[in-house]
Amino acid sequence: MDPIVIVGGDAAGMSAASKFKREHPDRDVVVFEKGEYVSYAACGMPYYIKGAVEEFDDLLQVSPEEFIEDRDIDLRLHHEVVDIDTDAREVTAETPDGAVSLSYDQLLIATGARAIEPPFDGMDLDGVHTLHSLDSAKAVHDLMDSGSVSAVGIVGGGYVGIEMAEAFAEHGVDVHLFEMLPHVLAPFGEMVAEKVEDHMREEGIELHLDTAVDGFTGDGDTLDGIVVGDDTVDVDLALVGVGVAPNAELADDAGIELGETGAIATDEFGRTSAEDVFAAGDCAEARHVVTGEPDYVPLALTANRAGRAIGQTMAGDETPVGDIAGTAAVKAFELEAARTGIIDEDAARDAGFDPVSVTITASSRAHYYPGAKPIHITMLADRDSKRVLGAAMVGREGVSKRIDTVAAALHSETTVGELEYFDLAYAPPFSPTWDPVLTTAKVLNGKLD
Amino acid sequence: MDPIVIVGGDAAGMSAASKFKREHPDRDVVVFEKGEYVSYAACGMPYYIKGAVEEFDDLLQVSPEEFIEDRDIDLRLHHEVVDIDTDAREVTAETPDGAVSLSYDQLLIATGARAIEPPFDGMDLDGVHTLHSLDSAKAVHDLMDSGSVSAVGIVGGGYVGIEMAEAFAEHGVDVHLFEMLPHVLAPFGEMVAEKVEDHMREEGIELHLDTAVDGFTGDGDTLDGIVVGDDTVDVDLALVGVGVAPNAELADDAGIELGETGAIATDEFGRTSAEDVFAAGDCAEARHVVTGEPDYVPLALTANRAGRAIGQTMAGDETPVGDIAGTAAVKAFELEAARTGIIDEDAARDAGFDPVSVTITASSRAHYYPGAKPIHITMLADRDSKRVLGAAMVGREGVSKRIDTVAAALHSETTVGELEYFDLAYAPPFSPTWDPVLTTAKVLNGKLD
Repeated sequence: MDPIVIVGGDAAGMSAASKFKREHPDRDVVVFEKGEYVSYAACGMPYYIKGAVEEFDDLLQVSPEEFIEDRDIDLRLHHEVVDIDTDAREVTAETPDGAVSLSYDQLLIATGARAIEPPFDGMDLDGVHTLHSLDSAKAVHDLMDSGSVSAVGIVGGGYVGIEMAEAFAEHGVDVHLFEMLPHVLAPFGEMVAEKVEDHMREEGIELHLDTAVDGFTGDGDTLDGIVVGDDTVDVDLALVGVGVAPNAELADDAGIELGETGAIATDEFGRTSAEDVFAAGDCAEARHVVTGEPDYVPLALTANRAGRAIGQTMAGDETPVGDIAGTAAVKAFELEAARTGIIDEDAARDAGFDPVSVTITASSRAHYYPGAKPIHITMLADRDSKRVLGAAMVGREGVSKRIDTVAAALHSETTVGELEYFDLAYAPPFSPTWDPVLTTAKVLNGKLD
Repeated sequence: MDPIVIVGGDAAGMSAASKFKREHPDRDVVVFEKGEYVSYAACGMPYYIKGAVEEFDDLLQVSPEEFIEDRDIDLRLHHEVVDIDTDAREVTAETPDGAVSLSYDQLLIATGARAIEPPFDGMDLDGVHTLHSLDSAKAVHDLMDSGSVSAVGIVGGGYVGIEMAEAFAEHGVDVHLFEMLPHVLAPFGEMVAEKVEDHMREEGIELHLDTAVDGFTGDGDTLDGIVVGDDTVDVDLALVGVGVAPNAELADDAGIELGETGAIATDEFGRTSAEDVFAAGDCAEARHVVTGEPDYVPLALTANRAGRAIGQTMAGDETPVGDIAGTAAVKAFELEAARTGIIDEDAARDAGFDPVSVTITASSRAHYYPGAKPIHITMLADRDSKRVLGAAMVGREGVSKRIDTVAAALHSETTVGELEYFDLAYAPPFSPTWDPVLTTAKVLNGKLD
């Protein structure tokens, strides 16, 4: 029988390979990976550059040798798949030793996403980086460690931009962050963004909001400034993190259907439009638990669990890849920010809801317990169904996992009234009697009457 | 129209009074409170004795004056209700100035619970305390502050015992904790208990497990030892915390039905067997969300939310008091322990389930992120329905609010397979990619196949 073939050796691909192999140790699983790293912790890169993660190797979760020797997966590094023939059920990869073709029984496309490279002048100057791979992280890490950098410009105020601001600041350099939109962290909403911005300014980050970067200037081949209109901000290192785009071209070229988001369209089991071809991770869409519609939110957990589910489905036990809620958390210096579901009123209306929202401030611990900190929460519900649609929160503690209670509520289509009566944990060091999530639900429910 | 009458001025009573009054500012609400404090933070008492909460007044959440003046509630301190006549719809209270009787339109019994006083020899010695009121907390606090205490004995290894061990240890005295059962923290299960016990021993607490205390000895009227069989352990202060019993006698005497637990039986709106008479808080039963049966788990949130719901129902807007999951958290020195639902296999079987359980150890943060700590989790499910029944966890961080995700799952009758695919928050400083709750569900689900 032809092997299971997997294109891409990161979270989704290796999860699927491992799961399938556990179910069918006798079947062959071939993974083509174009680079030399597999299953690495991309989300850990900012903390490596910061110096909080000391060893580069700590970012490598499972080594190629372990996959090959312990898990008996036929992992082929430096193999870039350039063609999929869904009629012939065959893929072709370019390798250092020429092209190879291989027939598949079932195929998983797990090609991930890439950092978007905006068409700025000077993108190719020395000193301009994107954080698109472990190698790029290593390069930036070594530059910061060398002590040669005194001012850094970050282009983009998303997760990567926020985390990198903290990482750079740790090195004592001047940090400028440029964001085209009026606020950083767009998916977290304005309330959270403003708290994060205030805090970043307190920490000495120079924020340039509502500011479109025009490009970079160089002294010869070497970056020396970021151009914004008529101004130039002197920097000797620039990090461009303006988002990612799905690596969907390979699938598109093979005639596999893409969704409206530009990522590969999939059904609830991760199947694409081509027979026996699956897609998962940062190259694929997933179904949003609130809207029921396809969405593109490339995050690590989504890739891992979809890969695992598809491995199980390919092994004969049909398993849905799971819906996404867009649940996310980010650390910004001393602040934690988190979000889940739909928190933007326009997005809620576009999805057919009649959104009602509240924003409250509650305490992370009993008010009398030392160290209690404010938590700011925005929660959205649908006026008609009273269903919880999403929430965002920010504070110095107790935020990143409190959002999970709301995420759980989204998966169960909970109403605000139901959420208000969830029996959540209380002890003075950890929560007020009414947990902030309950208090928010209580206030929101009052507004729905 | 006769007033709303409430017996007991703590969490349930004052929540109901406040809510009703907000809905009907024109109606009279009379609260009879036998003591002089209302709405106080009983759960904060150990932290006051520890010295973490510096001011006694911080434990008073809302003052009597605020209830009377700002909220226009007719609060009568030092009024102990001694009789309820459900036919005449009248209560009688003893006061410093003699008895008073009052007719009610609707009545709420919120008489709370009392510390159980075991029939030990020497319970009345100077130096033997229960933590049954703010006054008793103040007495113990002042004794510890006086520096006259050098060895303390705690009888009972429940929440109070664990929290008080930490509080006493902070004062540098020898601390002995006696528990009749083989383990402390019975509701948290053996796995959690053993971790807590190990940690308490590391912190210098002398644990006497599986050890029945026989009584206290004194030098004259003053405590000088705890008697266990033929041995005496020298202590100069003893704290007895062996649990609480519902103050249900007043209701019982009035012919109001009690449940099997000995607490006042209520329906989903908090109604008792007597017309227009409600009960809430530590004197009343509530419905368990997993079993659907009445249960008695006296905790602060349950009292607060039932009080509030009953206030709303009495005001004409029928509102269920909410089911309980027995969700609880406790801090034991540097450890957090938490539990929700059913975690005891025998209890699960008694409730008609076929329990399957797993215990795993996961990480509180990404494995490579500094400060990551192990979290130990036990989760129970029903083999047949695959429904999550409960969980307990313990660790140095990220425990107390992670339990809420499982509590939310219980309220929504979530299966283990559904929980495994909840989209929970991930960021390296706060969680591994698969949150420990997801990993536990994944392993448990594998065991259910």
